[in-house]
Amino acid sequence: MEFRAEKDSIGVKNVPENVYYGVQSLRAAENFRITGLFIHPEIINSLAYIKKASAMTNSEIGVLDKRIAYAIIKACDEILEGKLHGEFIVDPIQGGAGTSLNMNANEVIANRAIEILGGEKGDYSIVHPNDHVNYGQSTNDVIPTAGKMTSLKLLNNLERELNRLYDAFCEKAEEFDHVIKMGRTQMQDAVPIRLGQEFRAYSVAVKRDIKRIQKVKVEMKELNMGGTAVGTGINADTDYLKKIVPNLSKICGMDLVQADDLIDATQNVDPFVSVSGAVKACAVTLSKIANDLRLMSSGPRTGFGEINLPAKQNGSSIMPGKVNPVIPEVVNQVAFNIIGNDVTITMAAEAGQLELNAFEPIIFYNLFQSIDTLAYAVDTFIDNCVKGITANEDRCRELVENSVGIITAICPHVGYAVASRIAKEAISTGESVRTLILRDGLLNDEELKTILDPVNLTQPGISGKNLLKKEQ
Amino acid sequence: MEFRAEKDSIGVKNVPENVYYGVQSLRAAENFRITGLFIHPEIINSLAYIKKASAMTNSEIGVLDKRIAYAIIKACDEILEGKLHGEFIVDPIQGGAGTSLNMNANEVIANRAIEILGGEKGDYSIVHPNDHVNYGQSTNDVIPTAGKMTSLKLLNNLERELNRLYDAFCEKAEEFDHVIKMGRTQMQDAVPIRLGQEFRAYSVAVKRDIKRIQKVKVEMKELNMGGTAVGTGINADTDYLKKIVPNLSKICGMDLVQADDLIDATQNVDPFVSVSGAVKACAVTLSKIANDLRLMSSGPRTGFGEINLPAKQNGSSIMPGKVNPVIPEVVNQVAFNIIGNDVTITMAAEAGQLELNAFEPIIFYNLFQSIDTLAYAVDTFIDNCVKGITANEDRCRELVENSVGIITAICPHVGYAVASRIAKEAISTGESVRTLILRDGLLNDEELKTILDPVNLTQPGISGKNLLKKEQ
Amino acid sequence: MEFRAEKDSIGVKNVPENVYYGVQSLRAAENFRITGLFIHPEIINSLAYIKKASAMTNSEIGVLDKRIAYAIIKACDEILEGKLHGEFIVDPIQGGAGTSLNMNANEVIANRAIEILGGEKGDYSIVHPNDHVNYGQSTNDVIPTAGKMTSLKLLNNLERELNRLYDAFCEKAEEFDHVIKMGRTQMQDAVPIRLGQEFRAYSVAVKRDIKRIQKVKVEMKELNMGGTAVGTGINADTDYLKKIVPNLSKICGMDLVQADDLIDATQNVDPFVSVSGAVKACAVTLSKIANDLRLMSSGPRTGFGEINLPAKQNGSSIMPGKVNPVIPEVVNQVAFNIIGNDVTITMAAEAGQLELNAFEPIIFYNLFQSIDTLAYAVDTFIDNCVKGITANEDRCRELVENSVGIITAICPHVGYAVASRIAKEAISTGESVRTLILRDGLLNDEELKTILDPVNLTQPGISGKNLLKKEQ
Amino acid sequence: MEFRAEKDSIGVKNVPENVYYGVQSLRAAENFRITGLFIHPEIINSLAYIKKASAMTNSEIGVLDKRIAYAIIKACDEILEGKLHGEFIVDPIQGGAGTSLNMNANEVIANRAIEILGGEKGDYSIVHPNDHVNYGQSTNDVIPTAGKMTSLKLLNNLERELNRLYDAFCEKAEEFDHVIKMGRTQMQDAVPIRLGQEFRAYSVAVKRDIKRIQKVKVEMKELNMGGTAVGTGINADTDYLKKIVPNLSKICGMDLVQADDLIDATQNVDPFVSVSGAVKACAVTLSKIANDLRLMSSGPRTGFGEINLPAKQNGSSIMPGKVNPVIPEVVNQVAFNIIGNDVTITMAAEAGQLELNAFEPIIFYNLFQSIDTLAYAVDTFIDNCVKGITANEDRCRELVENSVGIITAICPHVGYAVASRIAKEAISTGESVRTLILRDGLLNDEELKTILDPVNLTQPGISGKNLLKKEQ
Repeated sequence: MEFRAEKDSIGVKNVPENVYYGVQSLRAAENFRITGLFIHPEIINSLAYIKKASAMTNSEIGVLDKRIAYAIIKACDEILEGKLHGEFIVDPIQGGAGTSLNMNANEVIANRAIEILGGEKGDYSIVHPNDHVNYGQSTNDVIPTAGKMTSLKLLNNLERELNRLYDAFCEKAEEFDHVIKMGRTQMQDAVPIRLGQEFRAYSVAVKRDIKRIQKVKVEMKELNMGGTAVGTGINADTDYLKKIVPNLSKICGMDLVQADDLIDATQNVDPFVSVSGAVKACAVTLSKIANDLRLMSSGPRTGFGEINLPAKQNGSSIMPGKVNPVIPEVVNQVAFNIIGNDVTITMAAEAGQLELNAFEPIIFYNLFQSIDTLAYAVDTFIDNCVKGITANEDRCRELVENSVGIITAICPHVGYAVASRIAKEAISTGESVRTLILRDGLLNDEELKTILDPVNLTQPGISGKNLLKKEQ
Repeated sequence: MEFRAEKDSIGVKNVPENVYYGVQSLRAAENFRITGLFIHPEIINSLAYIKKASAMTNSEIGVLDKRIAYAIIKACDEILEGKLHGEFIVDPIQGGAGTSLNMNANEVIANRAIEILGGEKGDYSIVHPNDHVNYGQSTNDVIPTAGKMTSLKLLNNLERELNRLYDAFCEKAEEFDHVIKMGRTQMQDAVPIRLGQEFRAYSVAVKRDIKRIQKVKVEMKELNMGGTAVGTGINADTDYLKKIVPNLSKICGMDLVQADDLIDATQNVDPFVSVSGAVKACAVTLSKIANDLRLMSSGPRTGFGEINLPAKQNGSSIMPGKVNPVIPEVVNQVAFNIIGNDVTITMAAEAGQLELNAFEPIIFYNLFQSIDTLAYAVDTFIDNCVKGITANEDRCRELVENSVGIITAICPHVGYAVASRIAKEAISTGESVRTLILRDGLLNDEELKTILDPVNLTQPGISGKNLLKKEQ
Repeated sequence: MEFRAEKDSIGVKNVPENVYYGVQSLRAAENFRITGLFIHPEIINSLAYIKKASAMTNSEIGVLDKRIAYAIIKACDEILEGKLHGEFIVDPIQGGAGTSLNMNANEVIANRAIEILGGEKGDYSIVHPNDHVNYGQSTNDVIPTAGKMTSLKLLNNLERELNRLYDAFCEKAEEFDHVIKMGRTQMQDAVPIRLGQEFRAYSVAVKRDIKRIQKVKVEMKELNMGGTAVGTGINADTDYLKKIVPNLSKICGMDLVQADDLIDATQNVDPFVSVSGAVKACAVTLSKIANDLRLMSSGPRTGFGEINLPAKQNGSSIMPGKVNPVIPEVVNQVAFNIIGNDVTITMAAEAGQLELNAFEPIIFYNLFQSIDTLAYAVDTFIDNCVKGITANEDRCRELVENSVGIITAICPHVGYAVASRIAKEAISTGESVRTLILRDGLLNDEELKTILDPVNLTQPGISGKNLLKKEQ
Repeated sequence: MEFRAEKDSIGVKNVPENVYYGVQSLRAAENFRITGLFIHPEIINSLAYIKKASAMTNSEIGVLDKRIAYAIIKACDEILEGKLHGEFIVDPIQGGAGTSLNMNANEVIANRAIEILGGEKGDYSIVHPNDHVNYGQSTNDVIPTAGKMTSLKLLNNLERELNRLYDAFCEKAEEFDHVIKMGRTQMQDAVPIRLGQEFRAYSVAVKRDIKRIQKVKVEMKELNMGGTAVGTGINADTDYLKKIVPNLSKICGMDLVQADDLIDATQNVDPFVSVSGAVKACAVTLSKIANDLRLMSSGPRTGFGEINLPAKQNGSSIMPGKVNPVIPEVVNQVAFNIIGNDVTITMAAEAGQLELNAFEPIIFYNLFQSIDTLAYAVDTFIDNCVKGITANEDRCRELVENSVGIITAICPHVGYAVASRIAKEAISTGESVRTLILRDGLLNDEELKTILDPVNLTQPGISGKNLLKKEQ
């Protein structure tokens, strides 16, 4: 392998001749061999947008040579086309508040721009990573900005998947609207409910999460670009300061604004905590639904057996014919992971000191993973599970008829004490509630028919007034 | 002690004659000796509002005898005056989705209502805890409703304290606006900033948290009252269903609405996760600020020594004269506790099953503690710390002048490579940056004066254009 | 109310005349109105042991007047008899690394000692809180020591309860040893198991937790007493240093040792993280068991219905006869709370700086709560749940017979592919596995009898060799 | 691309002709597109050991044809040589308790074994993934076993790195033993300490973590191999049951044992919680040390400036010459991540149900990451930070001399009240403590010399007895 010598404030170091990254990227890659993973492609793209917008702006206001600006912009466009991503060699978990990632971008873009201008990689007299690509910027405004843009992009994906899930649950709510089944509270027989009502409730819960995601997206749109090192805007031209965010907003097509207080926006990363919190709340909703589906599909013979999940793969290496609820299980696991990620993000945010939070890399690593994995989990949840759910109508109805939970509907007509006595007798003897009520002459057949009508049982009704009439 | 015998479905049990709680409260108190603590007074009040509103509504629609309703309402009013709180004997951490707490309220109110109607405690033929006080209700709509009303009340307190903190920071921002000091990123000398800018940033961050709190309050206003056992409204009269939330809203003076989907609102507790998330984000902000204050006030002789916190108590039992940052420290600790509480709330919410989340008691215990302790911590933070902070102006200025961080402002005029060399030499030799710049003829005295003007150093400026001029 | 004026380095302040606490306690109580709760009685006792041991030791080595020592010791003994606990007025969540709590103890003991010596409260010329009661000590060795002693005491309680639980599970394992039931993996019918085997497994898991608790207790026995302010032992006499821990160990009857490195033991609180981790692991075990019990007792008619938990209280305010698994539910909630507490403890431990961790108060608040609530939860779990569990033998057997899970035992004799086909057919047609196997002549009646013998099905067996025989 | 058709209980599916994985792996890969990451290579190796040991054992006891066993063993050996790892295509986050991963191993090994025996991939009549490779096993004993073996391997790496770190701290403790510096508690000047004492304390803390890691490793050595589906050992030959773990232990060179209760060991995953807890405690220790190093190296001009960390990379894209504590920062971030992972692992463990915990995949994903990243972080911490730390001796000494913290040493000789007065005066006037003591004739020059001797100040001493002498 051929090398070129590069120099930074630490000293001279050989860099492979053919690579676009430079000495600072290489040092960082060596200092941080932590996960062995790659930088998220979307934050590479976000950086390309930022560097492009900066070059444009600097050129517009006359502080950057137009040829250099042109070359930088062209290099950025190549990245946005998916090229040069392999040149980002720093570990996502890195010390230094993202300086390594920012410099990796600066070096890659500088070297590609140098080539575009006919120079040789490493000849930073043509295009310099710091003096030109990073002109008017600091890691401390570039990296939080890139993190917010990336979160926004990924949240859009998640939102799209959640909307698909909402639709899927709505369809199932229609499909199962007529399926009467036993409702259970604390895993004990409660009162009847319709399976469609349960799926409707799932859809409503998902819709609430969608709204929360939409709300927190607003927090990702306030950027500290222009604040440079600590938010005071040192070294940033006042014209640049005014134009950088509108320019960035325009070229990336997102509706971005500059924060009112750039110092606050530089040092505080609570907006990421807020986003993580919304994603976590969504994970909680989905994990609860996944648990319900696993419970209702438990069986096939010795569980609840009320619904069937589509069989997607063999369930066991030793038990033939076993099919497991693998898709809800992966939803649960993604949720558990997101909840843990939220703790990490929270701790990292709390650990910020004075003018900067140095721990953005771990925040981004966890936050991007949370949003991505949730979107992917929802995707497989919809297509490989929810859409294919079928109901065991007969089993559902049979369980209702066999239960004593219908005593609740009778309670307003006979009082809590009498109803309790009947319920206890029914459970211990196996007699039906209906039989016992008739035996004791508490209600007649017609009254029972009205009260125990399946539809009446699953909606608010007339029961209340009857009680008073009887009492009077 | 004299006793009265009471009976429930478990059997007969002696209850002290003079108490207002009954057999079910007593069993619960015996089953759950977990924390030894009391139920939060505000949720007792919330329950009184709910029971009062239910009695009013049931009476209005003609399903509850007016005399009984009157007595129930009067008993509730007594609770709201602060009476009978001692009769709530169940542990805040309890099994059973809050049934024990709901029954504790039902029994206390029934027995007091019985007395009001001239009967003897325990004679439930006059007013029955279930058949009258709980009429048209279920633990499963009462308890989530009470939890939301209580959260709302406590969030209002918190919001008020946060607004006071915002004001206090704003005042300090004014007071310290002229104090130039060194900005630090990653605890290393960065570029100058004004102390007032730092406090302004704190105020802005707090304001953002206030907005988040305001937003999540909306989630606490959607109630499932009327949904009864599983949200289908079984046993709830349709008129009751329509009127209960407006009535409740009216008597408690809060702007409450009924949820569109009562089944969802009964089984899903993610709104509490959302509230906890917002409170947690606020805790993160405040803990970060507390950390900063502890750093900046470190010393008095061997630390940063930039600010002084008011001395509120002796700092040491062994080290005379030592005064510690005890108020920020308690803010940190409250924040750590809230972050842990958020995990508990999240897990409990995730563990809901089918038609109900049985784990609301632990959610409420943690959420109420989080909101309360944060409000109290902010209260002492304002009055015993923030308001009394003073700046060591001389020390602050001296550190700026002694630092090499001002090289950043010079960088656009000489380039990153030259600036790095100067900075390194300054650090290793102890020479000032200014001297070295002049020695090497990089800039003249007047240029330096403009560039290093304290005000210019802490705001965006002209530096950019100068560079280009020099280059051309 | 009458007052006495007391003075500290902050200034003069009125203290109620009749109280034993002094000016420093009062300032702390005013500075930290956070939870409104009281200091844990066991840490008050631990402090009394420490102050007593210090007075004894200082007197022995001749640095403390014997009369003063006598009075201090007598005051400490009164605290250990349960007196004066009401004089501890500081909030458990407090800034200042526990200085407030230490000074509260010093002041109460000093004032009581003054009285014993015939003086008037507040006349610290007789016995001084710092110069005498705190002699040779610092908050920074006293408080960690008190925290460890308290943890040890509470862990002993927990261990005793866990041993009782172990016994209870062992008894049930015997009682249910013959009850064959369906085993389920991923909530799907798997292979038969005996109910006694399940309870045996619970007992083994609990035993493992007991061992972990025993192991971490060792970490609580290493104390930094004698290290004073930062562990260097400044102001501690070398004789005192040698004798203080043995003396303390003797008077409190615990097997305590002095840490080898007092500086480490002063600044690092990871041993509390370790204890919390063991308690958390135990909480996980118990919560999983609680979940299982809730699943197996789900019903009574529409759930698994394999076991019955004892009815301990009415389950519902609206649904007559409903009995809920309230005891397991409280175990779950305590577990969730402990898991959150562990996060708080971890964060607080991580936040220690240089020579001290200032956040011990929040660590202790959470750790003591975790240990206590777990012990209380286990106590009610044993007596109000586990001991009273009964099995529905017929239901259990019927489910096994009805299931297709027995196909697994047949698999080695017919191969995975054939077994899968039979299983699928059985599930879709409702035919029994046995019938289909006979129909297809895959095994004869006698072979089936051996293979499907209930005892054989729940233990390792001969199945393997048979397969090969058939193959050969 | 050419395909072969494979069939499982879901149906027929095309599999690329040249791959070793089969239909079940492919379905799983399609069902779980969650992280896009690969299975950890060490768990692939663990699976190869298990499959090899099973084939050996089954062959030994005569239930598996020797030729088939030979081919399976040879395929496993190839995996252990690092081959075929690319054939593991399932996502680390997967539903189904690891069945997908187990089947991926079974299919890859079967197909390679088929080739070895001269057959064509996919011809499972020669070697069958379930009937032969998985013979006598179940996902439910294979996967927990593989997880434990892998944890053990990774913990060994971590332990080795921690031992290196211990050595590095010990060396620094020697090197800095004579460097007197100010000790700080709660970030406030306390009493002097030697820099070497601080590094000694770090070494002791690390040693304690090493011991904890060693202890929890024991929990990873107890395996449930032989328990098959639910721990009852169904389908496992009794001879196999006896021999499998000793055989496995022998071939992998680890000291493994079979759990006493295989049912417990199948369903409970608390040992992983325990391991994660120990790793987390270690992360806490290291993060606290990293925080200290960042504090002590803060500056260079406006911070503590007591030590220098080696410069490893440029610290800023905008601030020339800035060097940041990037290595400690990455240690912090890894610690935050581990703390979050611990929450995930805890939740996943708690969520186990009945005979199995289906959430092992997420447990393993997080646990392996925690152990790995901690080991890598420690590695860079040692070589790129700790080893190169230097002390600013002059600065350290100067701060001590300038501080008022030495008043503590004088306190026993003049009393707390007088000492407090002197300290306050020193702080407010800037006078030295020594001057004020002499001025007031509280001690003479010689006494002061002894008391304030630098060595005496950092160890327990004679101060105590002097006080009493003066009093008498």
